[in-house]
Amino acid sequence: MSQPYDDNNVFAKILRGEIPSHKLYEDADTFAFMDVMPQGKGHCLAITKTPFRNILDVAPDSLAAVIATTQKLARAVKTAFDADGVTVMQYNEPAAGQTVFHLHFHIIPRFDGVALKPHTGQMEDQGVLAANAEKIRQVLLKT
Amino acid sequence: MSQPYDDNNVFAKILRGEIPSHKLYEDADTFAFMDVMPQGKGHCLAITKTPFRNILDVAPDSLAAVIATTQKLARAVKTAFDADGVTVMQYNEPAAGQTVFHLHFHIIPRFDGVALKPHTGQMEDQGVLAANAEKIRQVLLKT
Repeated sequence: MSQPYDDNNVFAKILRGEIPSHKLYEDADTFAFMDVMPQGKGHCLAITKTPFRNILDVAPDSLAAVIATTQKLARAVKTAFDADGVTVMQYNEPAAGQTVFHLHFHIIPRFDGVALKPHTGQMEDQGVLAANAEKIRQVLLKT
Repeated sequence: MSQPYDDNNVFAKILRGEIPSHKLYEDADTFAFMDVMPQGKGHCLAITKTPFRNILDVAPDSLAAVIATTQKLARAVKTAFDADGVTVMQYNEPAAGQTVFHLHFHIIPRFDGVALKPHTGQMEDQGVLAANAEKIRQVLLKT
């Protein structure tokens, strides 16, 4: 029913350390890092360490683990950026906007009156990403 | 840190049976039903039975339960409507688009080249909702 997993995707490469990332959090089952093409300030991602394509094929334990990390990040970004809200999104297959085929949850701080930016494909400045990542990590250290 | 829960919200009323819904699935911890203002054909919702405002205050066990039900529904709607993909969204606080303050996950079948409709506030025809709900329940019966 679901498509096969291709381990050449960019998140698999990040997990293997072949591509750098602005790491926010890691535990036995999950990993979290900054989205390099953010739709808003502080946009980050939570992924499983085990390879799954998306929510259609993920194992129950891995899904529970990655949503727990998503919650941890949602709380952290709200505090780190004094955000008014948080949008969580998870896309399955290209028709839904999935572009990287390793299960991931988007966590995006929201601010009153500020719309999400479209996915432009434009990379954020690395200094901005590093500074935002540090703000989130500082909050996570206190929780 | 998070806002209090108000049990006069429409999903609390659905759980108490004070408002009807097109029910899709129920277990000890979760409930699923059709969104009456769908952003696409087959748009449905998974909620916790325990009252939580959103992902910022939900207890870990309830969060794990509702994401498991979200997965079940994602698979079911993909099959029921022969969809090309599935979008999962979860909004926290008004700045993120949350309008009902009881934790819920949106599950929306997606089709190549068909954009999501905006939240118009316009109610879908009850016959359409009933027919779509029946399609989803038939798939759930076989899984």
